[in-house]
Amino acid sequence: MGEKTITILGFAGSLRKGSYNKILLRTAKKYMPDNCNLDIFDLEGIPPFNQDLEGNPPERVKEFKDRIKNADAILIATPEYNYSMPGVLKNALDWASRPYGENAFFGKPGAIMGGSIGMLGTARAQYHLRQVCVFLNILLINRPEVMVPFIDKKVDGSGNITDEGTLAKIKELVNALIQWTGKVKT
Amino acid sequence: MGEKTITILGFAGSLRKGSYNKILLRTAKKYMPDNCNLDIFDLEGIPPFNQDLEGNPPERVKEFKDRIKNADAILIATPEYNYSMPGVLKNALDWASRPYGENAFFGKPGAIMGGSIGMLGTARAQYHLRQVCVFLNILLINRPEVMVPFIDKKVDGSGNITDEGTLAKIKELVNALIQWTGKVKT
Amino acid sequence: MGEKTITILGFAGSLRKGSYNKILLRTAKKYMPDNCNLDIFDLEGIPPFNQDLEGNPPERVKEFKDRIKNADAILIATPEYNYSMPGVLKNALDWASRPYGENAFFGKPGAIMGGSIGMLGTARAQYHLRQVCVFLNILLINRPEVMVPFIDKKVDGSGNITDEGTLAKIKELVNALIQWTGKVKT
Amino acid sequence: MGEKTITILGFAGSLRKGSYNKILLRTAKKYMPDNCNLDIFDLEGIPPFNQDLEGNPPERVKEFKDRIKNADAILIATPEYNYSMPGVLKNALDWASRPYGENAFFGKPGAIMGGSIGMLGTARAQYHLRQVCVFLNILLINRPEVMVPFIDKKVDGSGNITDEGTLAKIKELVNALIQWTGKVKT
Repeated sequence: MGEKTITILGFAGSLRKGSYNKILLRTAKKYMPDNCNLDIFDLEGIPPFNQDLEGNPPERVKEFKDRIKNADAILIATPEYNYSMPGVLKNALDWASRPYGENAFFGKPGAIMGGSIGMLGTARAQYHLRQVCVFLNILLINRPEVMVPFIDKKVDGSGNITDEGTLAKIKELVNALIQWTGKVKT
Repeated sequence: MGEKTITILGFAGSLRKGSYNKILLRTAKKYMPDNCNLDIFDLEGIPPFNQDLEGNPPERVKEFKDRIKNADAILIATPEYNYSMPGVLKNALDWASRPYGENAFFGKPGAIMGGSIGMLGTARAQYHLRQVCVFLNILLINRPEVMVPFIDKKVDGSGNITDEGTLAKIKELVNALIQWTGKVKT
Repeated sequence: MGEKTITILGFAGSLRKGSYNKILLRTAKKYMPDNCNLDIFDLEGIPPFNQDLEGNPPERVKEFKDRIKNADAILIATPEYNYSMPGVLKNALDWASRPYGENAFFGKPGAIMGGSIGMLGTARAQYHLRQVCVFLNILLINRPEVMVPFIDKKVDGSGNITDEGTLAKIKELVNALIQWTGKVKT
Repeated sequence: MGEKTITILGFAGSLRKGSYNKILLRTAKKYMPDNCNLDIFDLEGIPPFNQDLEGNPPERVKEFKDRIKNADAILIATPEYNYSMPGVLKNALDWASRPYGENAFFGKPGAIMGGSIGMLGTARAQYHLRQVCVFLNILLINRPEVMVPFIDKKVDGSGNITDEGTLAKIKELVNALIQWTGKVKT
């Protein structure tokens, strides 16, 4: 009682209904302790960024930025497409960081995770995303790194992760992000 | 007469009307020799990628893939947003490389260039794009690297590049790409 | 009186006597406030890493690791060679992080800077170094980024930086690192 | 008879006697066709790079540069240390590319491979190395990518690779490099 609630905004870089990375986010939500809330935002409806429109962005973008600003920390779940993060994810970050001087992410603590059906578990996407977060000034934790290879073999028909190691990693990430948020949040 | 025409497909990673990177492309077009054609494609109209729809992509995506397949080589002009390529550009690459096994870029020779109003001239975006091209199996030339810093100071009111050094670099890139295409095209 | 002294260990990725990056470090030392100390370590004498010897490393490596462990934070000044950090710098990091489980950098706050005679000011080297720091678990600040292009034009004959903008950036970096160290040091 | 012999220079980024990446190179040598030769160079004896000495480099460096210049193509086997290539490897590349204008690698075709005891099979090291090769102007093939995870489980007591999939990949890489060399060598 009396402890301030921490709100984390989570989003996945995929529009696919059955997205494995959306499943990662929902799993993270289960591990949130009582005083923490994971607010999940779906990137559906965010159109391709056009700088000519950045002064008056679409409603869905305004909503995205408001939800980011309202959060104490950020949790991104990224697929890997073509050895980098999806265009859909990068496009959402582009909108949310514009116009110049109105980057909604600035100074927020954050963490990233990702799962792929291949062997590398989104490693290449995550390091690109880390570089982007330097500019966005998201204060990322280094560890644990949650890179889930062969994720299609680790999810059951109801969209639940069945692999104990993966579940433990996600829980560890959630806890590390919450602890980090307490430390670095300004 | 008798010499086969080389077609290069060019596209810029920006939807902005006055985009500096579209200007780079139009400048490259001026330097095409007689037997070469730069076909410029505008990414406007390509929606956010959704894997659920990849089996039957939107018409604009089909057109993009056809134009790529029809080309002998690829020329990409990339802005830099948030220390990487724009989501809009990555999103177009994601569509064009899917579904699995139907990557339209596979084995094509290519080159990249970019301009920014900052000091680094899109360097960070270009190295991310190079990594993406490894997967896409675009056979990129290493040199020259066309990274145009402070590009807003190098374009006149009619959208023409006025800086001699930049013009020379673009011309050099065009010629290097054409020569490379002759060598590596299968 | 009574305030604990903060010790920062600094090292430059160059063995050259007149190294511009050593100059960056010496400049940073001048900006240290009273209760802070920048301990500068020279990488001279650290031999090429050989894993067969990691169990009993050379004396110079032991000394390097002791100085790291003794420090509250890390400041790295990196040149850029061949679009990445110098082998000399990476080699020192390799020694200091081995054997497995004895990474001297683990959990330390840190910052990076760099200067080059070219236009990019070591940007490419710094992003590679940032990726390395994820594994080393150095907690890097995002900002300011100190990338000094054309550094040969900004140093006088006595090895002093004469460019006001560069001096201000270094001072800002030092202060940001000290503040960050107070926040995240465990 | 009469067909020109192709010489490929190979080197591994490790000084360890039992290095897995040296084993990858020796395996590649077995797959060389009759008219091709893999000349393996050991990086032992190359000291830390010092730009003050680049005008008159150590004998071992001169030998390295001569062997590179004498080769038609380059094959690099890289371990991964701290999410990048080893300092030992980068240091050798630094020597061989200096002084300015005397980069021994310039314009050579090349390929990279790597093995690690971890899950990612040197992926992170290889993409950093690819960026370095842009500057060195080594003309790298995109495919196949030989990244061997859990390599310690794939080598027998005599230092022979026992995993059929890995052997097939190495053979494929060798053949792709030879074919590419015929195409792009100037």
